[in-house]
Amino acid sequence: MEDLLRRLLSGEIRLRNLDSELGDSNAAADVRLAFLERLTGVDLGPLRRARLDFNKLVGWNIENPIGEVSVPVGVVGPLTVEGDYARGTFYPLLATTEGALVASVNRGATTITMAGGAKTKVLRDGMARAPAFVAPNATRAAELAEWAVQNSDQLAEWVREVTRHGRLKQVQPLQAGRTVFLRLVFETGDAMGMNMVTLSADRIVRGISELFPDIDPVALSGNVCSDKKAAAVNWITGRGKTVVAEAFIPSELLHKRLKTTPERLVEVSWRKNQLGSSVAGTLGGFNANVANVVAAMFIAYGQDPAQVVESSTGITTVERWEDGVYVSLTLPSLEVGTVGGGTRLPYARAALESLGCAGGGDPPGSNARKFAEIVAATALAGELSLLASLAEGSLARSHAKLGRGGASRSDR
Amino acid sequence: MEDLLRRLLSGEIRLRNLDSELGDSNAAADVRLAFLERLTGVDLGPLRRARLDFNKLVGWNIENPIGEVSVPVGVVGPLTVEGDYARGTFYPLLATTEGALVASVNRGATTITMAGGAKTKVLRDGMARAPAFVAPNATRAAELAEWAVQNSDQLAEWVREVTRHGRLKQVQPLQAGRTVFLRLVFETGDAMGMNMVTLSADRIVRGISELFPDIDPVALSGNVCSDKKAAAVNWITGRGKTVVAEAFIPSELLHKRLKTTPERLVEVSWRKNQLGSSVAGTLGGFNANVANVVAAMFIAYGQDPAQVVESSTGITTVERWEDGVYVSLTLPSLEVGTVGGGTRLPYARAALESLGCAGGGDPPGSNARKFAEIVAATALAGELSLLASLAEGSLARSHAKLGRGGASRSDR
Amino acid sequence: MEDLLRRLLSGEIRLRNLDSELGDSNAAADVRLAFLERLTGVDLGPLRRARLDFNKLVGWNIENPIGEVSVPVGVVGPLTVEGDYARGTFYPLLATTEGALVASVNRGATTITMAGGAKTKVLRDGMARAPAFVAPNATRAAELAEWAVQNSDQLAEWVREVTRHGRLKQVQPLQAGRTVFLRLVFETGDAMGMNMVTLSADRIVRGISELFPDIDPVALSGNVCSDKKAAAVNWITGRGKTVVAEAFIPSELLHKRLKTTPERLVEVSWRKNQLGSSVAGTLGGFNANVANVVAAMFIAYGQDPAQVVESSTGITTVERWEDGVYVSLTLPSLEVGTVGGGTRLPYARAALESLGCAGGGDPPGSNARKFAEIVAATALAGELSLLASLAEGSLARSHAKLGRGGASRSDR
Amino acid sequence: MEDLLRRLLSGEIRLRNLDSELGDSNAAADVRLAFLERLTGVDLGPLRRARLDFNKLVGWNIENPIGEVSVPVGVVGPLTVEGDYARGTFYPLLATTEGALVASVNRGATTITMAGGAKTKVLRDGMARAPAFVAPNATRAAELAEWAVQNSDQLAEWVREVTRHGRLKQVQPLQAGRTVFLRLVFETGDAMGMNMVTLSADRIVRGISELFPDIDPVALSGNVCSDKKAAAVNWITGRGKTVVAEAFIPSELLHKRLKTTPERLVEVSWRKNQLGSSVAGTLGGFNANVANVVAAMFIAYGQDPAQVVESSTGITTVERWEDGVYVSLTLPSLEVGTVGGGTRLPYARAALESLGCAGGGDPPGSNARKFAEIVAATALAGELSLLASLAEGSLARSHAKLGRGGASRSDR
Repeated sequence: MEDLLRRLLSGEIRLRNLDSELGDSNAAADVRLAFLERLTGVDLGPLRRARLDFNKLVGWNIENPIGEVSVPVGVVGPLTVEGDYARGTFYPLLATTEGALVASVNRGATTITMAGGAKTKVLRDGMARAPAFVAPNATRAAELAEWAVQNSDQLAEWVREVTRHGRLKQVQPLQAGRTVFLRLVFETGDAMGMNMVTLSADRIVRGISELFPDIDPVALSGNVCSDKKAAAVNWITGRGKTVVAEAFIPSELLHKRLKTTPERLVEVSWRKNQLGSSVAGTLGGFNANVANVVAAMFIAYGQDPAQVVESSTGITTVERWEDGVYVSLTLPSLEVGTVGGGTRLPYARAALESLGCAGGGDPPGSNARKFAEIVAATALAGELSLLASLAEGSLARSHAKLGRGGASRSDR
Repeated sequence: MEDLLRRLLSGEIRLRNLDSELGDSNAAADVRLAFLERLTGVDLGPLRRARLDFNKLVGWNIENPIGEVSVPVGVVGPLTVEGDYARGTFYPLLATTEGALVASVNRGATTITMAGGAKTKVLRDGMARAPAFVAPNATRAAELAEWAVQNSDQLAEWVREVTRHGRLKQVQPLQAGRTVFLRLVFETGDAMGMNMVTLSADRIVRGISELFPDIDPVALSGNVCSDKKAAAVNWITGRGKTVVAEAFIPSELLHKRLKTTPERLVEVSWRKNQLGSSVAGTLGGFNANVANVVAAMFIAYGQDPAQVVESSTGITTVERWEDGVYVSLTLPSLEVGTVGGGTRLPYARAALESLGCAGGGDPPGSNARKFAEIVAATALAGELSLLASLAEGSLARSHAKLGRGGASRSDR
Repeated sequence: MEDLLRRLLSGEIRLRNLDSELGDSNAAADVRLAFLERLTGVDLGPLRRARLDFNKLVGWNIENPIGEVSVPVGVVGPLTVEGDYARGTFYPLLATTEGALVASVNRGATTITMAGGAKTKVLRDGMARAPAFVAPNATRAAELAEWAVQNSDQLAEWVREVTRHGRLKQVQPLQAGRTVFLRLVFETGDAMGMNMVTLSADRIVRGISELFPDIDPVALSGNVCSDKKAAAVNWITGRGKTVVAEAFIPSELLHKRLKTTPERLVEVSWRKNQLGSSVAGTLGGFNANVANVVAAMFIAYGQDPAQVVESSTGITTVERWEDGVYVSLTLPSLEVGTVGGGTRLPYARAALESLGCAGGGDPPGSNARKFAEIVAATALAGELSLLASLAEGSLARSHAKLGRGGASRSDR
Repeated sequence: MEDLLRRLLSGEIRLRNLDSELGDSNAAADVRLAFLERLTGVDLGPLRRARLDFNKLVGWNIENPIGEVSVPVGVVGPLTVEGDYARGTFYPLLATTEGALVASVNRGATTITMAGGAKTKVLRDGMARAPAFVAPNATRAAELAEWAVQNSDQLAEWVREVTRHGRLKQVQPLQAGRTVFLRLVFETGDAMGMNMVTLSADRIVRGISELFPDIDPVALSGNVCSDKKAAAVNWITGRGKTVVAEAFIPSELLHKRLKTTPERLVEVSWRKNQLGSSVAGTLGGFNANVANVVAAMFIAYGQDPAQVVESSTGITTVERWEDGVYVSLTLPSLEVGTVGGGTRLPYARAALESLGCAGGGDPPGSNARKFAEIVAATALAGELSLLASLAEGSLARSHAKLGRGGASRSDR
């Protein structure tokens, strides 16, 4: 170890060469950790490798590993979901360090379950990658766009050369001057699919380059995909799964469990989720705290936390309905998978198994959609609970005020 | 255990009551895990508590814990940063399961360091919370807004009653009809500050309610804050830290380390980060993959991963500059802290210590700003590397094409 | 004439030189018209100059005139407005060729008047111009920004050199990398103010250029202003006037005049103006048809129709209120003036006089604000009427359906 | 007259009843004008009817007419356009009161013509209307959406019952909870088409209502259309015509005619149109002053000025290209027509005739597309000229600075 540290400090070998140098990524991680401790004088024990086997992860999920972080996981539920794929009662897991989040979502989940459960539905499904091409002029760029749309069969054939799981569904060209972006939308089975679609897009780009030698394939990803960014193209046309979750909560349950009334919940939701979000100039953030649930579940289940950005866009509605409220959450671009990526990690696989959707589904895609439905239902629970807290809070203050001789509600 | 499981299954006790029932949150977590295993028939061993002490976390960072997930952590660097707060050479940690990310950022970081390092600067600093108020009419709402702006001293005094660390900086009223949102902006020292500003906003709401009994404080958070959402109000006025990072990379280094040229890098960046993002209709996503770095560092350093949404908005520029390129990244709303929240976790504290910015800074706020500068510099490294990869990829294809007698670049 | 046409056709003289050539812009316009008729073989009589005196307009409002177009003008009202500036009953004029628009707005206006009138209020007032500067690096750019904010007195003094009517109110710096935009906000009295603020910004840019010789003043307008574009910076911080208009409409009046009910009007407005606009991904278009009224009044009253873009952004709300509905419209960036620009035209001046707000007000700015309030109230009338039409339409269909044995309303 | 005025003032008759009362809309307009003059004491002579014949306009283009406004019209050109529909040299007309606009666009137009002209192309064409439906739940809403997509033939058949010119092209469903918006996209021939698509949408709504009696057709327009609003749905999927215009300007011409250099023009355009607009948070406003040209042409040619809002969204690019610059402008939702609406006005028809595109084209749609291409080319001219002015301005200052011993350009 000391020898290795000396050589690292002297620059004789590099951190990233330790795996091959030692032939063992776990040992390499230990050396890197020791190196950092030596350099900084800080005890990094809490980050030391404990359960992960880097020999199985390096090259797949991580490089230059030094260890691991242990994020706390809480459980919510029971949460009854009646979807096209998710049917039954679940106990979703949230990996988070934000106090009160699990408790709040739990309150929403059990309330929904007592109300008969959440209904869910996947409305769209497709992962996108959009390479950018620069043509000599706009007409030529338009020719490429038209060719690509009309020859999508050819494109699909190229895709079949590089992947068995992905299938090209649609080509959406978007053009600005002589630059054209081909937004390629794929079915990716149970994978979230970014790797698959990147590989496929690369194959398509190579094919096009041969046929259109005067057109410059300037970037394999031209940001019209749009990955890990809040973008209208995702909001309007979807990316990953478009999912809706809904529930009906009777007044009595609202009162008993959430200490509020239908009228108040409707009022809070529309002032906040519609009016406030409009005033704030949001792109897709017409909800209370979807990102909290999406982020916590993404970490627990091995999804890509950077995709929380667009996966958490969505619209929450609370509507007066008979004797109670109808609540809904629509997520246009929820990007999840149950194979590949972080789902290879042992904890993620176990977590997915506990929901009955680990690995490839039968038919393909059904596991990923099931998971998407459960995420949407859990996020709906989070919305219901937070909105009720806000409603209750103000009521509480209103009541206090009334007690001091202030305005009655009818004064407003 | 069996007895507890039986009582849980029968509904006699609830999952959330186990902590008090057992008087030990670690034991409670084990019971919950066993309960889930029993229910689902799945071995949840990989999620079992290994290092966390839930007796120190329940009530602060988690409820209903069942265990922990172990996210792999990789190291990048050396990364030289010359900022107002961060000065020196650092080895940032990324917690991620996305293969190739650490390697890519590492390549960017070492290149920047070889080029003399990144300069960084915090341009703005302030955390916001915006309660919503409903007045009888718009004039009355405007009166409240004007009163709040002119009596910000009174508001600040209320804030001092509930926090020693927070300080009210500014009141930004935004109105729609008879609803008015008071966007309260606070200095929060080294804390990210959401709890502090929520508490402070609540105090202000109570104070206002007494003085304006005819005005309904409809929601403590009215979504104009705007927390965990892509929103123009954050993009324009900032939330958390507004940070800029920049570097100059000479042509030779570009060529040698990143296999590309200044011209090509400029071309790729503007077609993708400016043109493509515009076509996609993004709000703030004028960059290549900032969210990847921000998410990975947020998890490693105990930040709130749900805030990746707005913390990853930003503009990347690559500009031709003398014999090389000037690259910059500007993040308008990077929400980070070095005390409270997830930074209480042992691994997060150790990680922050390794950067020399754990806990409260001297002066207050300096640690959080130092960390913000390091995040921005690391994200800049990620941008440089990914853009170079894209540029190299297309060049590679161009070269291949030339070899087959295709068009020369001058044909375009 | 024939000789002139021959010389024009031969290229001996140019269209734009006719004014000086003939010493009479009216004659020059006639020649240009004849030239176009000759070239195209089309009778342009309907465009021939009839009432305008181009000798008074060339150099101020038009160049290369060939004649004029006659846009039809309709009247709506009476419209009672109770604002801070507009107080009384008005007959607004709409210049439009869209059938049914005047009738619809008229219906809304008279309904509002019967209900007691609209209340209006100007919440903010300021016109902005944002020059762009490129510094050697981000730190230097930040120095300029900080200097400008701290030396706004110096900037204001420069402004006083070039205008008597404009006054610098605020400096809002926004930075991306080494580029910094100084959004300069001005009071412009009764003028809409674009010329004034451009001139003032130019003076400031010159002053800064002398003090910061290493900084490149790359563009006098850097698009952060943001003129004639839908932009978040206008939506959040305002441009021109931020105005709110509101009214209460009792159920009886709704029923009698607009054939709808409070419940239905609330339902239609929230599904359309909140939910639909959110789904559409609008920036500021949370209303039914504000642009119609703003465009028609802008043309009638000599405003700049290109500024309809941001002047028509706004939020319409319809809220259940006692026995009726509360309706409101908030326009964050309504850019209007009563002196300068198109208000110099005889018809515009007469039209403004008929509202009692032509020319400079006493105190300065009061006429422009009065006009802004009237525009907002008229646009509110347009909203009320269109929403009621939509509501009635669906009710009509619902009734028809009921007649055929379809679902009763309680089934829905 | 006196008698009528008395009866109007006493409320015995109403302004809107004058047409039927008098049996002559021109006389009615005169009475209304006199009435307004009496009420306000203002001479409205400049608004008096001069050329319009309201007997031909009332019921089609205006109600409650009082007269007309005379907007000055200037000419620019020659402008050579080489498009798919517009081929030749044109003299576009701009109706405006903004001084310097015509001169600026003229400079750009003649420069483009000297450089060989602008190329143009219509990339997409379709007008949209999106009724909103509320279903009992999200599943039922999804059923309607799926039914509508799969039965677009049935929908198209309904459309044929109400219009000969419109044809249903596509059904784009967008859903939020239990509300579903069916964005119906139509071919509308040479008409801009709003009336046609509204009528068609109404027919479709009636058809659906019969088949889905449990679904409430809540609003014929649900704002997902999205008419007269800046909305992502238009930006991404288009509305009206998507048009691109482009030109190559050699360095020499840039220098001689526009007093600038390729480098400087590229620099100004990207700092302003890309960087500045991004910083401002625009939706679609990545250009310099497209709205000016679109608004001025819309008024001159009888288009709907309220549609300037989305018709002026677009991306301008200036790119270094051989010895000069490539400039382009892409307008995703340019809404124009050559039949119906304001094109019925005599001046508009004459103006359209002068471009060779009045009335219905052969084949249908070709006139409207020709006009769209000319608008795009003219707007491109406006972009080129304004950007050059900005570039020149700063160069001028730079030169002045150099003369005073300031920094040389190489210092930057």
